[in-house]
Amino acid sequence: MMVKIGRARAHTNIALIKYWGKRDERLVLPMNSSLSLTLDSLYTETEVVFNRDVDMDYFYLDGKIQDVESTNRVSRFLDLFRNAADMGEFAIVKSKNYVPTGAGLASSASGFAALAAAANIASGLNLDDRELSIYARQGSGSATRSIYGGFVEWRKGIDCWDSYAVAIDDGKWDIGMVIVIVNPREKRISSREGMKRTLHTSPFYGSWVESAKEDLRNIKIAIEERDIESIGRIAESNSFKMHATMLGANPPLLYWEPETIEVMEIVHELREQGLPCYFTMDAGPNVKILCRLSDAERIRSSLEQVFKPEQIIVAGSGPGIAIL
Amino acid sequence: MMVKIGRARAHTNIALIKYWGKRDERLVLPMNSSLSLTLDSLYTETEVVFNRDVDMDYFYLDGKIQDVESTNRVSRFLDLFRNAADMGEFAIVKSKNYVPTGAGLASSASGFAALAAAANIASGLNLDDRELSIYARQGSGSATRSIYGGFVEWRKGIDCWDSYAVAIDDGKWDIGMVIVIVNPREKRISSREGMKRTLHTSPFYGSWVESAKEDLRNIKIAIEERDIESIGRIAESNSFKMHATMLGANPPLLYWEPETIEVMEIVHELREQGLPCYFTMDAGPNVKILCRLSDAERIRSSLEQVFKPEQIIVAGSGPGIAIL
Repeated sequence: MMVKIGRARAHTNIALIKYWGKRDERLVLPMNSSLSLTLDSLYTETEVVFNRDVDMDYFYLDGKIQDVESTNRVSRFLDLFRNAADMGEFAIVKSKNYVPTGAGLASSASGFAALAAAANIASGLNLDDRELSIYARQGSGSATRSIYGGFVEWRKGIDCWDSYAVAIDDGKWDIGMVIVIVNPREKRISSREGMKRTLHTSPFYGSWVESAKEDLRNIKIAIEERDIESIGRIAESNSFKMHATMLGANPPLLYWEPETIEVMEIVHELREQGLPCYFTMDAGPNVKILCRLSDAERIRSSLEQVFKPEQIIVAGSGPGIAIL
Repeated sequence: MMVKIGRARAHTNIALIKYWGKRDERLVLPMNSSLSLTLDSLYTETEVVFNRDVDMDYFYLDGKIQDVESTNRVSRFLDLFRNAADMGEFAIVKSKNYVPTGAGLASSASGFAALAAAANIASGLNLDDRELSIYARQGSGSATRSIYGGFVEWRKGIDCWDSYAVAIDDGKWDIGMVIVIVNPREKRISSREGMKRTLHTSPFYGSWVESAKEDLRNIKIAIEERDIESIGRIAESNSFKMHATMLGANPPLLYWEPETIEVMEIVHELREQGLPCYFTMDAGPNVKILCRLSDAERIRSSLEQVFKPEQIIVAGSGPGIAIL
C-alpha cells in the first residue's frame, strides 16, 4: 500500500486590524491588508494521508466524519496541492481542533493553515512559508496569517501569487490575550456571508477600507515601539469600525450579545484602574482582550465575577506552523 | 405688579430618521433633515412669567430651582423672545416634565418646545407654528419637531429662518411605541458633545448623511402607505447607522448597555412570531419599539418577562403643542 503522509500543527490568530471583505471571492483576495497576533493555546493538528486505494476524500474532525459540505471544502483545497504535484490520490484527513469551532475564534484559520502544512508534506511539494501562506489563503482568508507566529501582516497584494502573510514581530515579549467565550454556539451568519453582505450593501464600506489602511500603518509603528496602549487603542477602534460597517449592512448585521457589552464594561473599568487592556471582536459574540500576558490573571479574576472559569481562555503569543 | 404669563404643553418625539450633527453650532442647523413621531404620554408643561420686579431669570424644573448652567441655557433661549419683542423683563420659568430627564427620551425636545410656546404667549409675540419651530430649534434641535403632532419632518433648510419642522401625517391611525427604560440615569456623554465628536472624527460621517437622505425619502413613502413593516425596517436600519457612525468616532462612542441588546433580541423574536415591531435607539441605552398601538400590550407582556413594569412605557401618537 503506497501512502504519502504529512502531519502539522498551526495556531489560530486574532486580527487586530480586521479582514472583512474580498475583492475576489474565488481567489480569496482581500479588500484591505490586515494584521493579527498568533496565539499559543489555540491550535489545530492535522494529518493528511494520500492513498490510491481510497475512493474519495474523507475528512474527520475531532474523531467524527464530517458532512459533504465540509468535506467538499477540504477536497477543493487539497485539489490545489494535487494539481500542483500532478497527483490523483484521494486523501484521508484527520484534524483535531484545540479551538472551539465556529465560535468566532477563527478555527478555520488554524484549520486551513494546518491542512496546508500537512498537505505540503504529504504531497511532497515542499512549498516555502510564503507559498504556504498563499495556499492557506485559498482555504480561508484568515489562515493566510496562521503560517507565522507573533504579529503577522497579511498584505493584500495585487494578484493570487502576491497576496500573502509576512511576520512583523515575533511576539516574544509581554503580550497576550484573554478570550471570553460568551457563546460557544455556531454563529448564525458565517463570516463568508456576512462580509459579502457588508461589502455589497453597507454605505460605510469604502470608508472602512480607507480607515483600515491608516490603522495598519499606525499599529505597525506601535508594535515596533512595543507600545501596548497604542496597539490596543488602534485595535479596539478598528474592531468597532468593522462592526459599525456591518451595522450599516442591509439587512443590518449585529453579532453582539448582551454579555459582549458586559465584557466591554469590565475592560473599561479595568482600564480606568490603570490596567492597559483593550477588546476586539470578530464575527461572533465572543470578546478577545489584548493585554500584557503578565496582567492576564488579574483580568481573568475580574471576569470570573461574572463569567464561569470555563468561559475564559488565557493565551500568549504563539509560534508559526510546526511539522509533527 | 405687571406680569406677563404664558403656559403651554409640548410632547416629546422620537426620531425615526435621526438628527446627529450640526452644520452650525450656534444656530442649531442640522447636517441632515430628520423625521419623528410625537408621543402622547411623554410631555412637558411650562409656565413663563415675565416680571419686571425680579432681578434675574429663575428656572424651576419639577419644583426644584435649577443650577446656573441650566438656567443660563433657558435665559439665552428667552433672550430670543425678549429681543424680538423688545422687552427687558426677567422671567420665572416653571416646568414639569412627564419624561424621565436625560435618559435618551429627548426631554429637551418637549422641554424647549413647551418653553417656546409659553414664552410666545408671555412675550405677546404671536409667532405661528412654523416660526415657533424655528425658535424651538435654537433651544434644542429635536425640539423643532415637537411643535407638531404625529409624524413630523425637520427640514434642514439653508439658513436660520429656513430650517423648521413640517407635519407629514397626523399619526391618527394604529401606530405607537413601547419604550424600555434600560437605565434612567443621565447619559455620560451628552448628545451635544457626542454629535460634535462624531462629526469631526468618524470616517463614516459623510456616508451617514447621504444615507439618511435616502432613508428619509423612503420612510415618507412608507408613512403615506401606512406600511408599518417598511417604516419600521427603515427606522431600525437608520438607527443602527447612526450608532455605527458613533462607533467610528475617536474615541469611539457606544451608548448601549447589555440590556439594550436584550431588548433587540426580544424584538427579533416577536418579529419572527409575525408581530411587526422594530427598535430605534438614541444617544442612550434605552430602546424605543415602533409597533401598532394595538400590539403594544402584547409587546409589553413579552418585555415584562425580563424587565420591571416601571421600566416599560407605552405611548401612542401624540398631538402638537397646546396652550394651557
